[in-house]
Amino acid sequence: MKKGNINVSVENIFPLIKKFLYSDHEIFLRELISNATDATLKLKHLNNIGEAQVEYGNPIIEVKLNKEDKTLHIIDQGIGMTAEEVEKYINQVAFSGAEEFLNKYKDSASDSGIIGHFGLGFYSAFMVAERVDIITKSYQDGAQAVKWSCDGSPEFTIEETEKEDRGTEIVLHIAEDSTEFLEEARIRELLMKYNKFMPIPIKFGTKTETLPLPEDAAEDATPETKEVDNIINNPTPAWTKTPTDLTDEDYLNFYRELYPTQFEEPLFWIHLNVDYPFNLTGVLFFPRLGNNINIDQDKIQLYQNQVFVTDEVKGIVPDFLMLLRGVIDSPDIPLNVSRSYLQADGAVKKISQYITRKVADKLTSLLKEDREGFEQKWNDIKVVLEYGVVSEEKFADKSDKFMLYPTVDETYFTWEELNEKIKDNQTDKDGNLVILYASDKDSQDTYISTAKEKGYEVLLLDSPIASHFIQKLEQTNEKVQLVRVDADHINNLIKKDEVVVSRLTDEQKESLKATLESTIDKEKYSVQLEDLDSSDAPFVITQPEFIRRMKDMQKTGGGGMFGMGNFPEMYNLVVNANSNLASEILDKPEDQKAEVINQALDLAKLSQNLLKGKELTDFINRSFALLK
Amino acid sequence: MKKGNINVSVENIFPLIKKFLYSDHEIFLRELISNATDATLKLKHLNNIGEAQVEYGNPIIEVKLNKEDKTLHIIDQGIGMTAEEVEKYINQVAFSGAEEFLNKYKDSASDSGIIGHFGLGFYSAFMVAERVDIITKSYQDGAQAVKWSCDGSPEFTIEETEKEDRGTEIVLHIAEDSTEFLEEARIRELLMKYNKFMPIPIKFGTKTETLPLPEDAAEDATPETKEVDNIINNPTPAWTKTPTDLTDEDYLNFYRELYPTQFEEPLFWIHLNVDYPFNLTGVLFFPRLGNNINIDQDKIQLYQNQVFVTDEVKGIVPDFLMLLRGVIDSPDIPLNVSRSYLQADGAVKKISQYITRKVADKLTSLLKEDREGFEQKWNDIKVVLEYGVVSEEKFADKSDKFMLYPTVDETYFTWEELNEKIKDNQTDKDGNLVILYASDKDSQDTYISTAKEKGYEVLLLDSPIASHFIQKLEQTNEKVQLVRVDADHINNLIKKDEVVVSRLTDEQKESLKATLESTIDKEKYSVQLEDLDSSDAPFVITQPEFIRRMKDMQKTGGGGMFGMGNFPEMYNLVVNANSNLASEILDKPEDQKAEVINQALDLAKLSQNLLKGKELTDFINRSFALLK
Repeated sequence: MKKGNINVSVENIFPLIKKFLYSDHEIFLRELISNATDATLKLKHLNNIGEAQVEYGNPIIEVKLNKEDKTLHIIDQGIGMTAEEVEKYINQVAFSGAEEFLNKYKDSASDSGIIGHFGLGFYSAFMVAERVDIITKSYQDGAQAVKWSCDGSPEFTIEETEKEDRGTEIVLHIAEDSTEFLEEARIRELLMKYNKFMPIPIKFGTKTETLPLPEDAAEDATPETKEVDNIINNPTPAWTKTPTDLTDEDYLNFYRELYPTQFEEPLFWIHLNVDYPFNLTGVLFFPRLGNNINIDQDKIQLYQNQVFVTDEVKGIVPDFLMLLRGVIDSPDIPLNVSRSYLQADGAVKKISQYITRKVADKLTSLLKEDREGFEQKWNDIKVVLEYGVVSEEKFADKSDKFMLYPTVDETYFTWEELNEKIKDNQTDKDGNLVILYASDKDSQDTYISTAKEKGYEVLLLDSPIASHFIQKLEQTNEKVQLVRVDADHINNLIKKDEVVVSRLTDEQKESLKATLESTIDKEKYSVQLEDLDSSDAPFVITQPEFIRRMKDMQKTGGGGMFGMGNFPEMYNLVVNANSNLASEILDKPEDQKAEVINQALDLAKLSQNLLKGKELTDFINRSFALLK
Repeated sequence: MKKGNINVSVENIFPLIKKFLYSDHEIFLRELISNATDATLKLKHLNNIGEAQVEYGNPIIEVKLNKEDKTLHIIDQGIGMTAEEVEKYINQVAFSGAEEFLNKYKDSASDSGIIGHFGLGFYSAFMVAERVDIITKSYQDGAQAVKWSCDGSPEFTIEETEKEDRGTEIVLHIAEDSTEFLEEARIRELLMKYNKFMPIPIKFGTKTETLPLPEDAAEDATPETKEVDNIINNPTPAWTKTPTDLTDEDYLNFYRELYPTQFEEPLFWIHLNVDYPFNLTGVLFFPRLGNNINIDQDKIQLYQNQVFVTDEVKGIVPDFLMLLRGVIDSPDIPLNVSRSYLQADGAVKKISQYITRKVADKLTSLLKEDREGFEQKWNDIKVVLEYGVVSEEKFADKSDKFMLYPTVDETYFTWEELNEKIKDNQTDKDGNLVILYASDKDSQDTYISTAKEKGYEVLLLDSPIASHFIQKLEQTNEKVQLVRVDADHINNLIKKDEVVVSRLTDEQKESLKATLESTIDKEKYSVQLEDLDSSDAPFVITQPEFIRRMKDMQKTGGGGMFGMGNFPEMYNLVVNANSNLASEILDKPEDQKAEVINQALDLAKLSQNLLKGKELTDFINRSFALLK
């Protein structure tokens, strides 16, 4: 047997790193600014623990374009490197300087916010540059500045050079195929995308500032202006502060900073902050969703130590909260792993559960502290919350504390209040609590009115996922049924043991039914004669709850195991045998019965939104003629 | 100045490759089977050009699980390796064996279908295995089999071993955290995802086959069974064949193979096949979309030399064709690059244009060869085609050859036919061709009937993006206007120089208008008296084309630059001064006018779908009462 060592050949691995390691070339700038931030924070840390004694000052990172020379510069005022350190950190690809540093100063460095993975990140520069120079001078007394240079081949040069200040300047000689990175607008775009909230101020160009006029200035004096550094980032974004230090206005300003194109203010927000068992900070905003649910835009952003990573947070944030906005910052979320792995990862699961719990807590306190305000927000948040109840058991468990049940008259009940309010009048003869609801106030108005006349409460459950939510409510609550107001005639919606009086004899009923069935299309309507109040509508069209709900659920996915798609559109036509119209039909001469029946059927169809097209046109023309 | 070489340290790069090179661990199997396929095809190629003289036979690749030993085996019958070759290809990470091979046999190998990038792909095995063995024997006469073994550290061992057949067996000792890859179901899933159409048969387990009964078997004889290799892939999928060798049934079978859960047959398909200036084969299917537009499911799949790569084809396929299904196979599509880069890439642009052109050509020939069949498909394909016309200039340029314009009566015109048909009757006094359309046959029936009585053709443009499509039609065609049937009263829809007769005097009109305006809500309806035919409807509600269209466009995104969202819902109420009802209102006693006007307004609202909620309930109750 022979032993040997696998030889990673530089000539071959180098192009691979350049090409494949990052699928997005643009991230080179994030990596280099992360390194510069590291170098700056390292110096601060060494100062703090007494290992270095230098004037730390207010260091910035400067990004500079030189279109003539085709170079892009990233300049920091950090720790710098000696020739030996360049040798060690740069020439050994994948030797993570940050890691070694962290090991050395383990305890003291743990909370000093050191970001990066020196080494490999640096080499991403070669994705866009044909040559990279490093000009660097260590913070140590009397250090000699050095210049390292490499054209992307494994060969490099290193030489002594002049540099006034401590720190590192990276010079990218941008390659022919990457000239987009010589455009100011493109660099600005990248800085805004990845570096908007990094902890060291980043300067990109200058801007003109107008100076205030001196108090004794003439009225027509022109104010003086001066050129100042253009700092593109906010080094201390809201999520890095403690909630008690922030006003509502601070949160709103941060929201505008995050989503400059969102004009509407968020409804409320949740500040996330946890150290154990994982590290996570962030602010989540509940936006006013309205009808424009576009989940591809202005999503939750994921940061690691203030560096933007991605806005793909599926798996980290529970599905039902994907419509929220804001920031999550955590070093504990594994990146570059498959979605399935992410969802199985214990830490990620805990993060997702923590977020769910915080959202539930916030909703509970909002309801408690400002009931009216919460009710006003309800319409904008209900879809998210209903989806949460349907999809997250832990959220559903707490939902009695914050879910509201609005009626068609805009009264908002909690689950407990609703039960209290309706239990006397809406318990059926089998002891089931029957909750009536409508899905559309306009098109179900006739049925709603009838139910309200009986003293019933009618909920308005009109979100796109209402059918799933309703199913969930019934599963969780025993002896509770939800029934839509048009599922049956009023006496059957909530069945009670009431004595029914018949105005017609059985023979009359049989005769009426025969007449009706000979006139009305039996394929579409199943005729039912019912003894309702004489004042109730003479003709009513209903569709049984179960069939309609299966159809609804099929439309929004799920359900449909019975192949409901192929169910015929079948309705019940309930004819009130106690109505005057019923008697009238019986009394009419044979040749006039059909006209009355058809007109009554048209009216019943109208109230169920079923009179359309030519039938409606004919009805309207007939009615116009009757007006004359 | 000092020169040096960058040193990629194996200890550090190795974990990186394992962790980050592929974000999805599962692709290790694809990589290993690609290598096995390579090794097999290489041998075939050497045989073909006379460099090898071996029995090629019908080689297969076998994938085998051993749950007890916790190993997964990938076994090929290909070219095999000598100890020197193992040294060369395996021990030098990223030394691409395939590349060297291709360089050596450049001309002859170019079309022999050699896939892979040996080297790096192999190391993906360490993402899931704690130890990997290679047992291999070269095809060369008298070759000595060798066994290479490595536990993921850079150290490996190599020794002589026994192996009967030529070829390579890779043994993965699956790591603790990857035991999912010891599950048969999981491996089967991966094979089906990535290897379903690879060119060498892949065996995974065995299956039982029932043998046919001999002719003279007794009636109650039980047929014999035998165990046969279970081949999981189809090595020659439809897109690798020439269209003339394929029947419709072949394409349909391939579709079912691709999307086993799709029960509906596709409407038609397009076979793609091009060698220059890029290589691309594939088959695109136009599915019957119906209402269930779910673009996240059963998407177009991208292959490279029969290896599944991804089903994210955004950027490669023009946006409007993303709803299609099928396969694109091209070695010329750069992978692992950013979307923005992809869209700017010249080759990719050409691919996208080629696909667009092929689709346009296919549509043109379908229309020409089977007009009736094409018309029947129209409803299922119109959204895709309208989107294509709106978003792709090159597609729009050719669209006169295949776009159809259906009327509400299901007559289908081409653009030319439509113009010919309507130009006499539907050219207005300013010489504009006015094309009338409806967006909903049911709810606009009253208006459609009125227009048809005038002999006008009414198109049905009811797709979700119709408003954008209409805008595009007007932009491309001078002196053409599209007007919805309810945009104005019938005499104004297409303005002609016609003499109008008034039945009422100016004084009567003034009096009528005053009466109407005192009864009707002026905030919602602007009352217009018009001299229409006495048989035309007495009350009609219209909404001007421009305002309605802006609102529509805002709903589907785009437009809305005028902040139309805040426009009040304002309609015109056109009252036909020549109608009997108009005279009747004038003649009625003062205290009875309002009742007639309100009932007439309700009827007009009904025909515009505006009578809702309480208003509708009241109307119905009133009408029921009138029936008695």
